[in-house]
Amino acid sequence: MEYRKIKDDDDEDDHDVASDLESLKGKSHTVASSNIALATLGGERTNWKRKGVVTCALTILTSSQAILIVWSKRAGKYEYSVTTANFLVETLKCALSLLALTRIWKNDGVTDDNRLSTTYDEVKVFPIPAALYLFKNLLQYYIFAYVDAPGYQILKNLNIISTGVLYRIILKKKLSEIQWAGFILLCCGCTTAQLNSNSDRVLQTSLPGWIMAIIMALLSGFAGVYTEAIIKKRPSRNINVQNFWLYVFGMAFNAVAIVIQDFDAVTNKGFFHGYSFITVLMILNHALSGIAVSMVMKYADNIVKVYSTSVAMLLTAVVSVFLFNFHLSLAFFLGSTVVSVSVYLHSAGKLR
Amino acid sequence: MEYRKIKDDDDEDDHDVASDLESLKGKSHTVASSNIALATLGGERTNWKRKGVVTCALTILTSSQAILIVWSKRAGKYEYSVTTANFLVETLKCALSLLALTRIWKNDGVTDDNRLSTTYDEVKVFPIPAALYLFKNLLQYYIFAYVDAPGYQILKNLNIISTGVLYRIILKKKLSEIQWAGFILLCCGCTTAQLNSNSDRVLQTSLPGWIMAIIMALLSGFAGVYTEAIIKKRPSRNINVQNFWLYVFGMAFNAVAIVIQDFDAVTNKGFFHGYSFITVLMILNHALSGIAVSMVMKYADNIVKVYSTSVAMLLTAVVSVFLFNFHLSLAFFLGSTVVSVSVYLHSAGKLR
Repeated sequence: MEYRKIKDDDDEDDHDVASDLESLKGKSHTVASSNIALATLGGERTNWKRKGVVTCALTILTSSQAILIVWSKRAGKYEYSVTTANFLVETLKCALSLLALTRIWKNDGVTDDNRLSTTYDEVKVFPIPAALYLFKNLLQYYIFAYVDAPGYQILKNLNIISTGVLYRIILKKKLSEIQWAGFILLCCGCTTAQLNSNSDRVLQTSLPGWIMAIIMALLSGFAGVYTEAIIKKRPSRNINVQNFWLYVFGMAFNAVAIVIQDFDAVTNKGFFHGYSFITVLMILNHALSGIAVSMVMKYADNIVKVYSTSVAMLLTAVVSVFLFNFHLSLAFFLGSTVVSVSVYLHSAGKLR
Repeated sequence: MEYRKIKDDDDEDDHDVASDLESLKGKSHTVASSNIALATLGGERTNWKRKGVVTCALTILTSSQAILIVWSKRAGKYEYSVTTANFLVETLKCALSLLALTRIWKNDGVTDDNRLSTTYDEVKVFPIPAALYLFKNLLQYYIFAYVDAPGYQILKNLNIISTGVLYRIILKKKLSEIQWAGFILLCCGCTTAQLNSNSDRVLQTSLPGWIMAIIMALLSGFAGVYTEAIIKKRPSRNINVQNFWLYVFGMAFNAVAIVIQDFDAVTNKGFFHGYSFITVLMILNHALSGIAVSMVMKYADNIVKVYSTSVAMLLTAVVSVFLFNFHLSLAFFLGSTVVSVSVYLHSAGKLR
């Protein structure tokens, strides 16, 4: 659960809907067509390379994230305050974005696209994804009254469907029928891979449990799609500046969370109480994968993000066989095959 | 297991490979092109209607077959000799084919295509599918030394893959990549739907067990594909005549099985010992679904047959919820969804 909290905060990267999205639609069209007009073969190749690199980075980081969690669980219980760790993740992301920016400023000079200063119009929507995640994390405490933790892990796969649906509705991007088939399969495959002897209990979830699970999936999907909308609204704007502002609000929201949830623990035992080497590694990993998520939103999209993190889940299980002597179930093999076919369908089903 | 035996014999409908298949290929091409030349819209529609009717019939019959088996299991153990039941199934199929033929002779008169008399060249390959099934049923007794019955049910899904591969290799018919993806998903979906808490044991199957399972899948797939080759070799030949000869050999092989396996039981307790109302219903159902299989081979193909029987499996489970208060697992829902998507992909992925 602590993992989920630290992880969900990672994704805090999104923004003002209706009107903004309308303008986004217009802009991205213009940009897309001018891109096509200008694109040389080399440019196309650079785009694909960048997309591939950030996607691979996200997959590997997400996968090692899960491995770190297993490792830390084996090492004992979490003793640190999750809220302070989340705050440090946001701070580290902010620092890394600034570091990247100083290098860019040194090389390219300060331009309109990479200057840090911003306008109210640009920045007003940046707190929204962070707020959505905060609200979702709040709900998380209540859903456990209706579903147990393994059941919640299974219900989390609803995120895949909600992301697809909201991606279609909000960003108005089309997937082909074959790609939709692939997306449904991705959800089924991931769930199948996680099946165990107790999974059937999730079917006994009561109506309020289902409603909360669906609301949480929608919040999570909406936050993801909204982040993409924010980042893509200004395609020429440097991603590190966009990240910087997203993470500043992430820091602010997590500071509030520290005060609300862990004020006593932090004042009595100190900010860094219970931190270990693994904790530091986890914070580092979460910061890097958070940045990778933003990059995927900028250079690819939410669909690629969902595929990437799903494949990471399977990768984790395979690596765990060697690292922790994990036992792979038949359900895992079946689920992995379905996910692999789904990845193929997503690429084979591309709209022309 | 008795069910499996009676069922597998049902499929005994197939035929001389290499040279025959070459000539088949040539013939079917000629027939296909002349068909296209002659086809009116009405003719096309009749073909589709016939294909749909036989496919639905097979699905419903296979599904009710499984329900009869559950029913008979609840009613108590099988007390009758399975070999005699199999023999009666073949006899009934023979009789029904003859009945259909007499009606055709009355209406259309006896022609070259519907006369019962045959040539050695036509009939020489008809015993082969029956022989293949006999060999497969023989192997079935040995595989249980390596795999338990639920494990065998899971390994039987390899039939889906073997049928697809042999269909491609032997009949030289092409499936599109999307259709192959669908076929892999069909196999995964059916297996997922059957998962239970003991399914993982199948992964501990030893190498000889796997080899036997694969050989059995190949035998079963080969028998199916070979039946299609026999039946389609002479497209204008009446299906009832082709069935008649297939079933005559089925009767002969099953008569041999009675003598080998149940000679004592039949001579001491009588041919019909242990028969009940359910037994009669099962024999009737197996005969009709055997004929439906032949019809699907004639008017559609093995791929349609595999989809049809797979969908029947899911249908059975759903009907069993109402009839026997069955409990559907999460794995069943996931598997069914994957199978449904697979059916969609088979149709969406049609080669143009």
